[in-house]
Amino acid sequence: MTRLMIVGLGLIGGSMARALAQTGEYELIGIDCDEATLEYAHALGIFHTLAAESETYVREADVVILALHPRGIEQWLHDHASRAKQGAIISDVCGVKTAILEAAAQSVPHGVHFIGGHPMAGRETSGIQTSDAALFHGAHYILTPTQDTASKAIEQLKRIAQQLGCRDAVMTTAQEHDKLIAYTSQVMHVLAVAVCDDPELFDCKGFEGGSFRDCTRVAALDVPLWTQLFSMNRTALVDTIQTLEENLHAYRTVLESGDEQALREKLQYSSERKRRMNLE
Amino acid sequence: MTRLMIVGLGLIGGSMARALAQTGEYELIGIDCDEATLEYAHALGIFHTLAAESETYVREADVVILALHPRGIEQWLHDHASRAKQGAIISDVCGVKTAILEAAAQSVPHGVHFIGGHPMAGRETSGIQTSDAALFHGAHYILTPTQDTASKAIEQLKRIAQQLGCRDAVMTTAQEHDKLIAYTSQVMHVLAVAVCDDPELFDCKGFEGGSFRDCTRVAALDVPLWTQLFSMNRTALVDTIQTLEENLHAYRTVLESGDEQALREKLQYSSERKRRMNLE
Repeated sequence: MTRLMIVGLGLIGGSMARALAQTGEYELIGIDCDEATLEYAHALGIFHTLAAESETYVREADVVILALHPRGIEQWLHDHASRAKQGAIISDVCGVKTAILEAAAQSVPHGVHFIGGHPMAGRETSGIQTSDAALFHGAHYILTPTQDTASKAIEQLKRIAQQLGCRDAVMTTAQEHDKLIAYTSQVMHVLAVAVCDDPELFDCKGFEGGSFRDCTRVAALDVPLWTQLFSMNRTALVDTIQTLEENLHAYRTVLESGDEQALREKLQYSSERKRRMNLE
Repeated sequence: MTRLMIVGLGLIGGSMARALAQTGEYELIGIDCDEATLEYAHALGIFHTLAAESETYVREADVVILALHPRGIEQWLHDHASRAKQGAIISDVCGVKTAILEAAAQSVPHGVHFIGGHPMAGRETSGIQTSDAALFHGAHYILTPTQDTASKAIEQLKRIAQQLGCRDAVMTTAQEHDKLIAYTSQVMHVLAVAVCDDPELFDCKGFEGGSFRDCTRVAALDVPLWTQLFSMNRTALVDTIQTLEENLHAYRTVLESGDEQALREKLQYSSERKRRMNLE
C-alpha cells in the first residue's frame, strides 16, 4: 500500500482523507497539531496513524500532501522536507503557487519530487468536522509541475485527483496559475466581502434572491487563510481588482448617460461573452 | 373556482401556471402572443383557456398576473386595465415597482385592486419550455400594496405566494423595494457581466471554482428585460454601483499598501458582517 501522509486535517485535508480512504489503496497517516481534530480523525476510523508532529513519519511517507495554510506550508517545507525519503512525492493544496514553489526549491532535496497542487474546491466552513468525501467532485485539480518534474510523480497526482472525483487535472505553470486565480477565485472573494460592506446589508434581508446568495456565499471567509492568499499574490490581485473597478465604472457611465440603446448593446456584448464561455 | 389569468407565459408565467394548477383551485387563462408558446402551453394540459390576446378574457378574470417584460406591463395596464371587472385583482411580477405603480395609478379603475408583486426567483433561461413548478420554492415574494389597498386583495396574493411554495410574502413600499433591489439583485447582475468583460475570461476555463460559477451564473441574462429593469431604476442602481466601486477600491488600497495586519482587520470586519447577516 502507498503510505500517504496528509499534513493538516482541516476541511481540505480531512475531505481528501475521507475520499482516498474509500479506494483502499493507501495507508493514511494524518498529522494535525490540534487535539480535538486528532480525536475527530481517530473516530473516523480511516487513518492508520495519527500524530501531532510530522517528524517521525515524514521519513516513511511515499506521498505527502500539505493541506496547511500557505505560511504553514512554507514553514513545513523549511522544517521537514529535507527528511523526506528518496523517491517520495510532496504536494500541497495552496491557492497560490509561485511562493510555494520558491519555498520548495529551497528545501526539497534532490530525488524527492515536489509538485504544486490546487484542488479548486472549498466551502464556507472549516475544520475536519465539516469535511466531506464528495467535496472535490466535479472540481478542477490544478497541478504546476516544472520541466524537471518526473512524469511518474505527475501521473501519481493525476491518479489522486481522479480518485477524489475531480473533473480533470489541469497542467499549468505557477505564474500562469497565480495570474488566472487572481481573477477566477481571489477577486470573487474580494467582491463578496466588498458587497457586504454596503451600508444597506442588514436592511436587505427579505429582499435577497439567488444572485445575492450566490455572490456573497464566500464572504464569511477564513480570515487568516485569505489574508495570506491575497498577500502572497498581491500584484496580480491588485491588477484584477482595478480591471473590475473599471468595468463596473463603464456600466455606471452608460447608465448615467440614459442611453438605453448603448446599455442594451453593452449587455449584449457581456452576456454573449458569458454564453461563449459555456461553463457546464 | 377562481378565474386566474396569466399574461405572458415565459419562465415566470409558465412556472406560476404549473405550480398553481397543482392546487386545483383555479381556472387558468393563459395569454401569450407567441404561437409556439401557446402550443407548448396547450400540451401541458393545465389551462382552461389559451389565447393570443387579453381583450376577450380580461372582463372575466378574478385575478390577473402580468408576467410580461416591464414595458409590456406598462403597455398592458394602459391598454386593458380599464376593462377589468369590479373587484378583480391585478398584480405583476416586475423587478422594479415604482414605475409600474405609477402606470397602474393612471389606468386601473376604481374598484379594481392593483398590487405590485415581485417573486424573487429566476433562472438564466427563458421561455415556458424551461418553466418549473418548483421555481419559487424558498423564494421571497415581495408585495408593494399602498395604504389604500384592500386587505382581502393582499390576503389573496399572500395565498398565491404560499401556493407557489415561497418562503414568505414580504411587504414594503415601491420606493423601498427599488432601493434595496438595486443592491440585492440589480448590482449582482451588473457585477456578473462586468466580471465577464475581463480580457482573461476565455483563458480561465479550467481554473474556475464554485465562487466564479456562482458569481457569473446570471451573466447570460435576458438583454431586453435587464435593459428595461436597469433603465427604470437608474438612479438607485447608479448609486449602488458607485458604492461597490468604492468598497472594491478600499480593498485595492489596503492590498497595495502591503499592510497585512490592516488587510486582516478589513477582512475580519466584512466577513463578520456576512456572518451576522446569517442568510440560511
